[in-house]
Amino acid sequence: MSKSIFYHAGCSVCVSAERDIVDLIGNDKVEIVNIGEERERISEAEKAGIESVPALVTPIGNVLHLNFGASITDVKG
Amino acid sequence: MSKSIFYHAGCSVCVSAERDIVDLIGNDKVEIVNIGEERERISEAEKAGIESVPALVTPIGNVLHLNFGASITDVKG
Repeated sequence: MSKSIFYHAGCSVCVSAERDIVDLIGNDKVEIVNIGEERERISEAEKAGIESVPALVTPIGNVLHLNFGASITDVKG
Repeated sequence: MSKSIFYHAGCSVCVSAERDIVDLIGNDKVEIVNIGEERERISEAEKAGIESVPALVTPIGNVLHLNFGASITDVKG
């Protein structure tokens, strides 16, 4: 993959981090996924190693958890 | 300020995140500060709102804590 993927769940911490990441790396270089809405992608996020949102998966597959909005467990409800 | 500042303390989590951030936003757009060595800059990091390292302060002053390496308290020793 050549793009980063930013996973979030719509929380205020997520929205703020999303804005920062888009400003830093550019809108065209990051896919934004709201796993609160696109629930079928929760398992993909978990497989990538994401434990909480917001989080960024880099093009080489590294996970950067950015601040703390909600745990994946919370998102799954 | 026009550059982001990446604060770290030399830990393995820090080194990995540093590599990711440099890859993502570009070497010329981020200043790297090791507050384990440049101890006079610890207070600057605290004033920016940093609670743990590694962390990135964006050009508009927002703090993104990236994963978790060490708390500022630990760095201060």
